[in-house]
Amino acid sequence: MAAIEKVSLAEKFSRFSEPWSPKIIGQVNDFHVKAVKLKGEFVWHHHEKEDELFLVVQGKLRMRLREGEVTVNPGEFIIIPRGVEHMPVADEEVQVVLLEPASTLNTGNLRNERTLEKLERL
Amino acid sequence: MAAIEKVSLAEKFSRFSEPWSPKIIGQVNDFHVKAVKLKGEFVWHHHEKEDELFLVVQGKLRMRLREGEVTVNPGEFIIIPRGVEHMPVADEEVQVVLLEPASTLNTGNLRNERTLEKLERL
Repeated sequence: MAAIEKVSLAEKFSRFSEPWSPKIIGQVNDFHVKAVKLKGEFVWHHHEKEDELFLVVQGKLRMRLREGEVTVNPGEFIIIPRGVEHMPVADEEVQVVLLEPASTLNTGNLRNERTLEKLERL
Repeated sequence: MAAIEKVSLAEKFSRFSEPWSPKIIGQVNDFHVKAVKLKGEFVWHHHEKEDELFLVVQGKLRMRLREGEVTVNPGEFIIIPRGVEHMPVADEEVQVVLLEPASTLNTGNLRNERTLEKLERL
């Protein structure tokens, strides 16, 4: 087996710049840990089967929900349960760690020009 | 459905002090997110089926492995694959976010006085 190494979030975030393009930075059983940068507005979507955790590392994430908006700051996370429509918004760049089943598609129930079928591993 | 609320790691860590007693602070499908404080040495153990992610929020975690020791600092994580023996050590208090399948027992393959069968939710 390969040596077990720690992962630095700052190092991972330093290795890419494009927003809305999650990178896989770890796997825990059938879950993926992803690093993603957000900038601007995403699209309203939901995930049929997957809950999704957004942990903010840097910046301010505005999570729009049909019931209202929640602002998530560094050191805070929000879990969006499966079936719940959401739209992440970032006025300035936000660094987020995502934790979700490996089966999760970034655009959930939608397939459009923002859909990424295969994610890079960093 | 209840309103979706964000979770502050600092707020969760402020609500308990005893070491080696993980608290459940979130659930993502069949995974638990836990907050735990470490102080001193734990015991050598492994988990038969569960990988385990340790994200350090504060302090310095020394993760002893049979292959050597890895020091994990704030903003860094280490994933211990199932089957791999490990012993967390904290010279000073360390705040850690654990991410692991809900089935994970803190002492893994061992049951002893440090085993916690049922975890509190914070």
